[in-house]
Amino acid sequence: MRGQQVDALDTPAVLVELDVLERNIERMADFCRAHNVALRPHAKAHKTLGIARRQLAGGASGLTVAKLDEAEAFVEAGFADLFIANEVVGATKWRRLAALQRRATVAVGVDSLAGAQGVAEAARAEGTVVPVLIEVDSGLKRAGVQPGGAALELATHVVSLSGLMLQGVFTHAGHAYAASDSVEVERIGRLEGEMLVETARLLRANGVASPVVSVGSTPTVRIAGAVDGVTEVRPGNYVFYDRMQVGLGSAAVDDCALSVLVSVISRPTPERIVVDAGSKTFALDLGAHGNESLRGYGYDRERDLRLERLSEEHGVLSVPPGRHASVRVGDRLRFVPNHACTTANLAEVLLGIRDGCVEEVLPVLVRGGGR
Amino acid sequence: MRGQQVDALDTPAVLVELDVLERNIERMADFCRAHNVALRPHAKAHKTLGIARRQLAGGASGLTVAKLDEAEAFVEAGFADLFIANEVVGATKWRRLAALQRRATVAVGVDSLAGAQGVAEAARAEGTVVPVLIEVDSGLKRAGVQPGGAALELATHVVSLSGLMLQGVFTHAGHAYAASDSVEVERIGRLEGEMLVETARLLRANGVASPVVSVGSTPTVRIAGAVDGVTEVRPGNYVFYDRMQVGLGSAAVDDCALSVLVSVISRPTPERIVVDAGSKTFALDLGAHGNESLRGYGYDRERDLRLERLSEEHGVLSVPPGRHASVRVGDRLRFVPNHACTTANLAEVLLGIRDGCVEEVLPVLVRGGGR
Repeated sequence: MRGQQVDALDTPAVLVELDVLERNIERMADFCRAHNVALRPHAKAHKTLGIARRQLAGGASGLTVAKLDEAEAFVEAGFADLFIANEVVGATKWRRLAALQRRATVAVGVDSLAGAQGVAEAARAEGTVVPVLIEVDSGLKRAGVQPGGAALELATHVVSLSGLMLQGVFTHAGHAYAASDSVEVERIGRLEGEMLVETARLLRANGVASPVVSVGSTPTVRIAGAVDGVTEVRPGNYVFYDRMQVGLGSAAVDDCALSVLVSVISRPTPERIVVDAGSKTFALDLGAHGNESLRGYGYDRERDLRLERLSEEHGVLSVPPGRHASVRVGDRLRFVPNHACTTANLAEVLLGIRDGCVEEVLPVLVRGGGR
Repeated sequence: MRGQQVDALDTPAVLVELDVLERNIERMADFCRAHNVALRPHAKAHKTLGIARRQLAGGASGLTVAKLDEAEAFVEAGFADLFIANEVVGATKWRRLAALQRRATVAVGVDSLAGAQGVAEAARAEGTVVPVLIEVDSGLKRAGVQPGGAALELATHVVSLSGLMLQGVFTHAGHAYAASDSVEVERIGRLEGEMLVETARLLRANGVASPVVSVGSTPTVRIAGAVDGVTEVRPGNYVFYDRMQVGLGSAAVDDCALSVLVSVISRPTPERIVVDAGSKTFALDLGAHGNESLRGYGYDRERDLRLERLSEEHGVLSVPPGRHASVRVGDRLRFVPNHACTTANLAEVLLGIRDGCVEEVLPVLVRGGGR
């Protein structure tokens, strides 16, 4: 497909505007340099080697991933410094995680004694040491120990286990995605950073070294990442942005790098347009953690059209009578999705485009739900 | 993985109980024999050769698919009689569709003159004939011409185009998924069948042969498929069933053949359980066409637990204080998803299990959103 004109591409196709992508990568790297925090971008957003390499070239210290399968895929491709910002549980996975340390540094999150012991035993059996970070809940109410005492208690256990090397603490304020406005996003981001810094201080005050204080999330990164004492940020979505981020005020529509090229396959009535991509292309995200204020599933900037309904392989748009009469069967539309991460996860390849041509084909690794 | 005990499988894993699957396939075949209608099951539900072969062995006349990529994958595997129950649009796709006729019979839906002309031209260029069916809208308000006059007008055009062979008419009453109860499902199914039979009669009364009268959808199949004059049914989901179908009254919970095996990775508070599968494993379907009455994203039958929230790689469950205290980090749970079709689409393989062991590994073809 390399060299092909966008106009000639078969549909649906997931496109990435490389100029916009590279600008997004550069801006985040600039922010991190200005605030003297390490940037460890979350690769689950794109799962491609080409974008991960651009992130490292732009100054990222390593990558974040969401699961062991992703870590293995990036290690296989030569990446040397990864953090699985999630708990990894199960005897098979613990063995794989320990074995992976022979080829790269792969840190992992822990939030329970049982989880920490499992990792430690596998590490000892493999004759290696696994770097770990304590996950602390900053309000998302997902995984993670409570801030303060509970974090200290687990950290104290972790440092007592041979086979583990405690690196610090991390959190992900994903509840920012459910925020009603950018003021609430800011409040969440500030609390995220301050809470984690305070927890790290508590650990240190009790003799537990906690060099890494790592916060995440694209909406909160510029707030939490600027809190004094935070050492690392892990935004993921910022490479693409999407309708959710625009809705949260994290980005402008023109910052959105990823879009889906589709064809009109049916114009059954003047008020309806049907395209050849549905929930198996766009996913059904309305906001990662409950923000349902977004209407529809995608937005065509050029024609100001909104994807209203998705079946598995159809997208349906309603248009007011008399409007968009020129849109015909065979025409192309391009929609910015609600959530670029889950759209990318459904694609076999992302097509990196520049000046209207495909410049780079980016295969998506470890698509879908684990192996 | 073949031969492995379910208890020893890595997670997440998408499991298919083969006994239940085979019973579902047999029952639908029995229904079709009893009502003397052809069964052309929709393979988009599973996208696996192993299940498609069971359907043909059980008496299906051929397969239905949702897009050209799926048709190509099944032809490649030796399937000879397919129907793409969708419009296929675009010069590249028309060429591929025409070329495919050399290896199999691949019929396609049309609902516009432009679409029909595109297929016809490609067929003539390839020196072949493409079988087509007119799509008629039975109330889903997606693709499809209106019943009656509009269908007749398009059919008359189609028979005038060389390169096409009109086989009949089809519809999909997907709006049944948004029905509030089984009474409404029945009403929709009856209208679906009656409307299409009437449209076929109109065509025939005007000298246009319409041998095939094909209806779809798992919720409506037993109603629409029993309408006198319907010749073919195209249910898909019935091989698995899922929470949506149970909610609509199409199946009992014990008819659900597909489930997702997950591990508990975090038990951060007594009221919360976190598992290692989220929207990238389960998808976010709440009902294909708007039925949002289902609460949560999956149901564990054994423990009566409901998946409440999904992040990309996390599933979160809330439990009442004091309940499920025995569920610990490392434990396994098994959830029936809301929508088995989109869950299967995210999996690399489905694991066919019997008597607690993996009997068959079923690779999922053409996952995600087209190429």
